[in-house]
Parts: sequence; structure tokens; C-alpha cells
Amino acid sequence: MKRGLVVGRYWSTRKVDSLPQGALLEVEFPDGSRLIAVDPLGCNEGESVLVAEGSVASHFFGEPFVVVDAVIVGSLDDKSA
Amino acid sequence: MKRGLVVGRYWSTRKVDSLPQGALLEVEFPDGSRLIAVDPLGCNEGESVLVAEGSVASHFFGEPFVVVDAVIVGSLDDKSA
Amino acid sequence: MKRGLVVGRYWSTRKVDSLPQGALLEVEFPDGSRLIAVDPLGCNEGESVLVAEGSVASHFFGEPFVVVDAVIVGSLDDKSA
Amino acid sequence: MKRGLVVGRYWSTRKVDSLPQGALLEVEFPDGSRLIAVDPLGCNEGESVLVAEGSVASHFFGEPFVVVDAVIVGSLDDKSA
Amino acid sequence: MKRGLVVGRYWSTRKVDSLPQGALLEVEFPDGSRLIAVDPLGCNEGESVLVAEGSVASHFFGEPFVVVDAVIVGSLDDKSA
Repeated sequence: MKRGLVVGRYWSTRKVDSLPQGALLEVEFPDGSRLIAVDPLGCNEGESVLVAEGSVASHFFGEPFVVVDAVIVGSLDDKSA
Repeated sequence: MKRGLVVGRYWSTRKVDSLPQGALLEVEFPDGSRLIAVDPLGCNEGESVLVAEGSVASHFFGEPFVVVDAVIVGSLDDKSA
Repeated sequence: MKRGLVVGRYWSTRKVDSLPQGALLEVEFPDGSRLIAVDPLGCNEGESVLVAEGSVASHFFGEPFVVVDAVIVGSLDDKSA
Repeated sequence: MKRGLVVGRYWSTRKVDSLPQGALLEVEFPDGSRLIAVDPLGCNEGESVLVAEGSVASHFFGEPFVVVDAVIVGSLDDKSA
Repeated sequence: MKRGLVVGRYWSTRKVDSLPQGALLEVEFPDGSRLIAVDPLGCNEGESVLVAEGSVASHFFGEPFVVVDAVIVGSLDDKSA
């Protein structure tokens, strides 16, 4: 998985049916690269999250098939906690 | 998924049968890298889109199998909308 | 697989159910890039490990499905051993 | 898929059985990176091609299984055509 | 597939059961990046090889499942041969 920060939020009204509805979060990683991930947890901008990529991201949603290759799987605990 | 801009259009007359017919869109990402993606939505150059990669892109088309590893899954809404 | 060094440890209390519980290790590779991997071996910081990525990392855990795309599969022997 | 130029040709006599026989083409992409791909189309050096990567490249060949992660799926039409 | 040079050899005594036993070869690619691959061919350091990545590398070994994402699938013939 990759560790990154939620930096933005996108919507797609004109989309294929198998892309889930709702906000898509943009996550920035420490190397400056970014991904757009589906967020089943309700994360906020500035939150530190874990992103899983590839076919497991689609498998996570089970049936019916969703065309997703990146999903937020956890919010990271504060290190000082 | 990756967020990028449609920057061009390619055709392939001499191709394997399991590559879908029609235009293939070139998408450029913020880091300057590019992919060629199948476009089930009818996007235009300059449009901001979301690309899903890997085996889910092929799975999206169902049966019969297509040899595709990148597909446009949504057109991003205007942020100011 | 990729060879890297365990450099940190993360916890995620707010997570999806299919992400395994327990510590997640951060591994740094020689090129400076990092991944967060599930650790079935009980590795320590500073340990040199091997990370497998992609759908095989999820497959490794068998059923029920886990949403994991990186797993530590071995601790590397000391070269001088 | 990635768009690139065929820049070379390799043979492998000592290989695993599930790697198909015949020439393997080296394709260079605009960013300078290269891949070795199986070529079911009979492409030539200097030809502009489309490469699909990952498990779909193996799936393309059907049964029996081939251990292939990159395949040329199309030759790109001349833009001026 | 990627073309690279065998540059080292690693062993992992403390490993998960589904990682095959034996030496693991480190392969360096022309861009300087490296992978650790399982070697079913018995290659030597300095040998020019072809590496397949992803779930096909695991599939190559058949059943029972092995947690492998990179395998050497061929030794490249000398260009002058």
C-alpha cells in the first residue's frame, strides 16, 4: 500500500456505470505523485491515509464488478497517539 | 485511477482482434507521462478524465476478452461547477 | 520482489474490515521510494526484507479476501553469513 | 496501453517452456524507458506500436498459459494518413 | 518483460512458506532499477536475462500457490551469435 495525504476531491457526472457514484479523493504521496481513489471511509482533506492499488481495489467492492484500481483502505493513526 | 488530459487520438488498422476497434485516446498526466486508453464515453481533446489501469480495464468490457490495460472511466466535473 | 529496509511502523484504527489488523511496516527501497506492507513474519526496524506486490499479496492470505497489495515474504540473510 | 517505437529484437534459446518461441521485440517509449514484448503482428524496427502490459498480455494468448507480461496489440496508423 | 543483468544473489532463511526455497537473483535494469526474481533456469551473475512481473510470475509456478511477483523467464542470446 502507499501512504499519502488527501489533497482534493473530484466528481464525475459523465462516467461509466461501473465506476461507483460519489466523491473521488485525490491522494498525494511523499514523492509528489498523485492518485484518485475511491473512499469507503469518509476521509477528509489533510487526512493521512493508506491506498491499495490494482485488481484488489476492485475485488474489495465484491459483486457487481466496479472498475476501480485504487481504494483508501485505512486512515493512519496519529504517530504521537 | 489517474487524472489526466486528453491530448491526442490514435488509430490502429493493423491490430490484434481482441483490441477493440475505434479511436484510442492519448491522456497526459500532471507528471508528463502518457497512456493510450480506450474511451467508452466519447471524450474530446482537452477534456479532463479519469483513467483506470490494469486487468480491471479489460474486465470492464466483459466477455469476449479484450486485450486492454487502460480505460477512461469518467470525465471530471468542472471544479467551479 | 523488491529488497528494502524496514524504516517504520503504522497503525490504522479506522480502516476497512478487509485490511488485516496489526502493525503495518514501512519499507524503504534503495531508490528512496517507500511502501507500506503487511508483515506476517514479525520483522523489526532496520531489517532487510523482501516485499511482493500486487494481487499475489492478497492471494497469499487466502480466504476470506484481504485488501492488501504488498506483503513482506522474507527476511534476507546477512550476506556475510 | 503505451505507445512506443520498436528499437530492437532479442532471442532467448535457454528459456522456460511457457515463454513463447520466436523473436521478442524491444520497444522504447517517449520517456526513454524500454520493454521487451511478444509480437503477434510481425512488426519491424522503427514501427510505432501499442503495448499492453500485465496479466492481460498472458490472457491474450489463451490456453495453455504463457508467462508473458507485455504484448504488442497494434501498429499505429500514420497520423498523416 | 524487462531486460536486465544478474548482479547478485540473496537467500532468505526466515521466510513465508509460499516463497520458494533457493537463491533469489537480483537483476539490474538499464535505468539502474533492480528487482529480486526467482530463477528457474540456473542463471549466473553477469548473465543477460528477461524478467516477467506481476501475477503471471506466480501463475508460472502453478499449484500450490507461490507468493512471487518476478521470475526470470529466459536468458538472452548473445547479439553477435
